[in-house]
Amino acid sequence: MSAPVSVHDCRLVPLPRRAGDAGCLTVFEPGDAVPFEVRRTFTIADVPAGARRGGHANARTRELIVCLRGAVTVRARDGRAETSHRLDSADVGFYLPAMMWVDLEDFAPDTILLVLADTSWEEARDAYHRDYSRWLRRVLGSGAYAA
Amino acid sequence: MSAPVSVHDCRLVPLPRRAGDAGCLTVFEPGDAVPFEVRRTFTIADVPAGARRGGHANARTRELIVCLRGAVTVRARDGRAETSHRLDSADVGFYLPAMMWVDLEDFAPDTILLVLADTSWEEARDAYHRDYSRWLRRVLGSGAYAA
Repeated sequence: MSAPVSVHDCRLVPLPRRAGDAGCLTVFEPGDAVPFEVRRTFTIADVPAGARRGGHANARTRELIVCLRGAVTVRARDGRAETSHRLDSADVGFYLPAMMWVDLEDFAPDTILLVLADTSWEEARDAYHRDYSRWLRRVLGSGAYAA
Repeated sequence: MSAPVSVHDCRLVPLPRRAGDAGCLTVFEPGDAVPFEVRRTFTIADVPAGARRGGHANARTRELIVCLRGAVTVRARDGRAETSHRLDSADVGFYLPAMMWVDLEDFAPDTILLVLADTSWEEARDAYHRDYSRWLRRVLGSGAYAA
């Protein structure tokens, strides 16, 4: 279960949008835009000013994080490197591989996030790392950086 | 393929929300809240004042329609009866069975809808009825109201 993890596997994925006279439709379907079968979807809203979310890694779950409204900074770490993106458009999704430590910070007012995940909650819940030091030992000792 | 359709199969589904100090998380997972496996997700946004969406039925697709922000009126018809709901809360989803004629109207400004569907776009696209009269003949002739 110690697959190498790297922030370089994170990426911004353009989302297919169909804009017309009656508004804009954005489709999330397994394929180019969503690189996995979606088992679970969740939304995050009503985040107060200054609050943070995330603060964990999940050994099994891959996610696509989309900012439907507002803005948020997504910060991902693999134990040696980190990447962060300010998401402020529903045109793109942030692909988060499994086992990355993720923090969501600097929420703009009224931000709404949509997250697609490739595990059910039942599969995901036992796979959380919430202790940063233990997670760090795990990923640094995994051979991920042997090369 | 002529399964009976009835607006009485539409229903409002309460969605599990976990509210805390860092905002509110709403989960969409097959089970009580989402009565099907989700094959496709889409969002609708940037709908101008006075615009309508929907105006079709899909013979194969079941949907859960959620209003993440703003408000919209969902109107569903089965050919003899209709039901409409003003969706203005992310606490509930509107379950739309297959073959129902659906209209989305009276969008409040900045409304964002999330729609979960049980078909891929490839499965759904050939199953649209966009001609109301033809759809009506189809559902009224289907034996749905034989009882």
